[in-house]
Amino acid sequence: MSHPLLERHRPLLDQALATIATRGYWSAFAESPSPKAYGEEAPEAGRAAFEAHLGKAFELDQPGQCGWHTDETSPYGVALDVRYPVCDPQALVAAAQAAMPAWQALGAEGRVGICLEVLQRLNRQSFEIAHAVMMTSGQGWMMAFQAGGPHAQDRGLEAVAYAWREMSFIPAQATWEKPQGKHPALVMQKHYEIVGRGVGVVIGCATFPTWNTYPGLFAALATGNPVLLKPHSNVVLPAAITVRTIRAVLAENGLDPNLVALCLPPDRKAAQALYTHPEVRSIDYTGSNTFGQWLIDHCRQAQVYAELAGVNSIVIDSTDDYQGMLRNLAFTLSLYSGQMCTTSQALVVPAGGIETDEGHKSFEQLGEDLAGAIDKFLSKPEVAQAVLGAIQSDDTLARIDAAGSGAMGRVVLAPRSLEYAEFPRARVRTPALLACEADEAGHYAQEQFGPISFLVRARDTDAALALVEDLTRRHGALTLAVYSSREAVIEAATRVSWRAAVALSINLTGGVFVNQSAAFSDFHGTGGNPAANASYADSAFVANRFRVVQRRRHP
Amino acid sequence: MSHPLLERHRPLLDQALATIATRGYWSAFAESPSPKAYGEEAPEAGRAAFEAHLGKAFELDQPGQCGWHTDETSPYGVALDVRYPVCDPQALVAAAQAAMPAWQALGAEGRVGICLEVLQRLNRQSFEIAHAVMMTSGQGWMMAFQAGGPHAQDRGLEAVAYAWREMSFIPAQATWEKPQGKHPALVMQKHYEIVGRGVGVVIGCATFPTWNTYPGLFAALATGNPVLLKPHSNVVLPAAITVRTIRAVLAENGLDPNLVALCLPPDRKAAQALYTHPEVRSIDYTGSNTFGQWLIDHCRQAQVYAELAGVNSIVIDSTDDYQGMLRNLAFTLSLYSGQMCTTSQALVVPAGGIETDEGHKSFEQLGEDLAGAIDKFLSKPEVAQAVLGAIQSDDTLARIDAAGSGAMGRVVLAPRSLEYAEFPRARVRTPALLACEADEAGHYAQEQFGPISFLVRARDTDAALALVEDLTRRHGALTLAVYSSREAVIEAATRVSWRAAVALSINLTGGVFVNQSAAFSDFHGTGGNPAANASYADSAFVANRFRVVQRRRHP
Repeated sequence: MSHPLLERHRPLLDQALATIATRGYWSAFAESPSPKAYGEEAPEAGRAAFEAHLGKAFELDQPGQCGWHTDETSPYGVALDVRYPVCDPQALVAAAQAAMPAWQALGAEGRVGICLEVLQRLNRQSFEIAHAVMMTSGQGWMMAFQAGGPHAQDRGLEAVAYAWREMSFIPAQATWEKPQGKHPALVMQKHYEIVGRGVGVVIGCATFPTWNTYPGLFAALATGNPVLLKPHSNVVLPAAITVRTIRAVLAENGLDPNLVALCLPPDRKAAQALYTHPEVRSIDYTGSNTFGQWLIDHCRQAQVYAELAGVNSIVIDSTDDYQGMLRNLAFTLSLYSGQMCTTSQALVVPAGGIETDEGHKSFEQLGEDLAGAIDKFLSKPEVAQAVLGAIQSDDTLARIDAAGSGAMGRVVLAPRSLEYAEFPRARVRTPALLACEADEAGHYAQEQFGPISFLVRARDTDAALALVEDLTRRHGALTLAVYSSREAVIEAATRVSWRAAVALSINLTGGVFVNQSAAFSDFHGTGGNPAANASYADSAFVANRFRVVQRRRHP
Repeated sequence: MSHPLLERHRPLLDQALATIATRGYWSAFAESPSPKAYGEEAPEAGRAAFEAHLGKAFELDQPGQCGWHTDETSPYGVALDVRYPVCDPQALVAAAQAAMPAWQALGAEGRVGICLEVLQRLNRQSFEIAHAVMMTSGQGWMMAFQAGGPHAQDRGLEAVAYAWREMSFIPAQATWEKPQGKHPALVMQKHYEIVGRGVGVVIGCATFPTWNTYPGLFAALATGNPVLLKPHSNVVLPAAITVRTIRAVLAENGLDPNLVALCLPPDRKAAQALYTHPEVRSIDYTGSNTFGQWLIDHCRQAQVYAELAGVNSIVIDSTDDYQGMLRNLAFTLSLYSGQMCTTSQALVVPAGGIETDEGHKSFEQLGEDLAGAIDKFLSKPEVAQAVLGAIQSDDTLARIDAAGSGAMGRVVLAPRSLEYAEFPRARVRTPALLACEADEAGHYAQEQFGPISFLVRARDTDAALALVEDLTRRHGALTLAVYSSREAVIEAATRVSWRAAVALSINLTGGVFVNQSAAFSDFHGTGGNPAANASYADSAFVANRFRVVQRRRHP
């Protein structure tokens, strides 16, 4: 019943299963891009593999090809010039469906074994993928390596572990024997088949092309579904590399590689026809509310797992480590120029200021000190470049300009352009910090994606808590933080987090940041507020991706 | 961390957990209405308890009461005259929400303990509930006892077991310790809180007022949600008894009884306002496609778990037990006058007839023999009365008349009215068996709820299998059966069952019937075809009814 690849990777799976139950620290894949973890050759080989893609056609041998996609751009201003196959989505769906029965017949053991093998292969490609993620998303190198490589692989493995756990509860067969008093028992032999729902479409985003893609990709695959991976049209290479690796592993194992394909529809109409295709039964999506809501409204034939925009908040009531808090916030607001769905946007502060280990700080003083902390943190160019990365989209650039102009609130810290010697055309911006009143919701109560944060003045801490609860319930959030040296406030914030269904970080003053989420331990999104209808990862993320079809007969 | 009621009922829960994993035969609650199982006093006490409700107001002490509901009717023609509280749904929602935090604070242990206690109490009320189910739904006595009592309780327990299993994977807390090389490790203390989604509404049907209600009711409750139970307006008493028992158990345990309420909205507008209420976060529904689709389309704020209409099919290719097959089919088509969502409607037969252990039987001969088997089975009045029960709704009566008129196909067996000495005003009908051609889909390809079945003539067995696959994929089905003495046909039917995601019964010729589904072993519905988007019960039925909200801080 088992599968050689499952046997080979069984220890990895077992450790993942143990960790999702105990939720302590564990990472399956080394997050350090060190030769010790990846081998002396890996950095150079990865760079060479990345560079070998540039200026070329990325051949995938997929059905229905009708052109080439060439829209990719780099926030670092580097010419990529990779051409990707544009295929008729209907042909991809048909081919995916044709590949599905053999994938079903492989059983949970075989499917999970293949997924684990794919993850191992992807891990060995971490340097290549890191360059691809960095150059397309604009992430700094270290984040591109970690979030694009091992952390994304960890989230993929996590999804596989959840899928395995749920599927492993389904016995292949059972003997049902019902006593009938003096008469012979009624006996039925029953079989239970795990059947995927049908073609899954996984729609990637421009900022985390692997981290936000792998959970849905591997959850859908492991549970018996083909997957069409539709990357953001400007950020294709990480997805293309991933798809090629999966197709290679499938072919090596005698499976139809068309089970997984890169999907770049020729136009908007073809894309919409794909998403509403009756055989597309699941859609995983990360991105804007507008399009996410379109998917939810129109793709009624599919389960839609959506991570949308939100407004992440912090309530700052008090602290006994003022400098630690400022340093922590400065890093959070700077990292990848705030282009994370987990970055805090609304920092809500009592009008009367806050008590700290350095005495009372007024609302204005806090703003000044936080601005100073950000400036100081980014004062060394090499730190700034490594942390900020580049701005992914024109829309974000425009928002930063608007923030700097004062149109969105009083400017506490103006955003600046930075030069980047290695990439002279890179578009790099430092964070904008604005201040406004609680009743100026027009400024802060919608997602301002990018390095734009607001110090929001609330009447007092109770009002601040009520404000963030309302914000989160109405607009959604993936993260909430509180700083307080009063347990009663932390308790109140905890109750807010329950009612608004948002993960809470308390008094982060060290090396953990509110926008970070660790696979196997932290749930990313709760699925319980408007920012996301699903979580990475939990049982609900996998359990409805397959169905069980039974048959019974007398023996 | 545990709860006294969980401790008390732990063996029951453990057995349920073991059985949903191995899926052999087990029933937690005795299905025989015998004194041995329920005590010498139980039958009479149950009857007395039932009769004590008649002609009276059913007091529940719920908030927002604004009138009395008096629409209940009995298919047996018995005057019930019970008055039920009509309450403002908004008041019920508000009260349910107020009851929710304490229910959350009880934790999975306490909630599951309470649910198990409720199920035990309901079990002791099985005779009372059986009379209520019989007199409102029209079921025969034995079915009313079994399906209305112990089998419904089994399905409720099954849902609790699934809910417990999923919730038990969530650790209350974890220590996350990430090594930092030579530096001190990063340490976070994390807590994980299971939070219900919000108010659940469970909408009952007229035919199985407990069996189809308990899974959603107990799944929602156990996972931390309040529940408003909205029974069919003609079939209220079984729900009212259930709600009273739950409220009593809640009150005895110091909990707010308004966590669970009977909900009979004053009018259609109030009902719709309830279903679309922003705080109603799940809806469990059994009933018509029209209203089910309305719920799915309009109640976007809620998870909708829907069991709708379908067209259940049987492919009859051949058999080596012709008489056994006929007897089995005669029972299936007669039981509760086909008023089961699992009753077969389309019996698809090759035009060339079938091979049997009694020689070749033509399509016409099979029809004649099946009609004869039904007639023979129902020839004794006491058997007919016990098996058929009474016709629940006027619509079904009208459909039976139409079937008898020949408007829906050639009449092979005409439906008849039967007298029922004990209940002279009972509306009792024998099954109608019709014949038509495969291309007369207008007759058989929509649910004809009630004792109306079609012998459908297909070109051959392959065509029959293709027809039922198409029927099931387009219109949905909860059951599929095949009769064949050829393994290749059974194999082909198995593949049909996978593609159409429908449970398959093979060669039932004895004491198991296609329309029966055993808790803990048989999945009721797959959730994978249009007849139902969920299954009783699996992980997907419970996993998305709660969310996990974490918090983390340095220790």
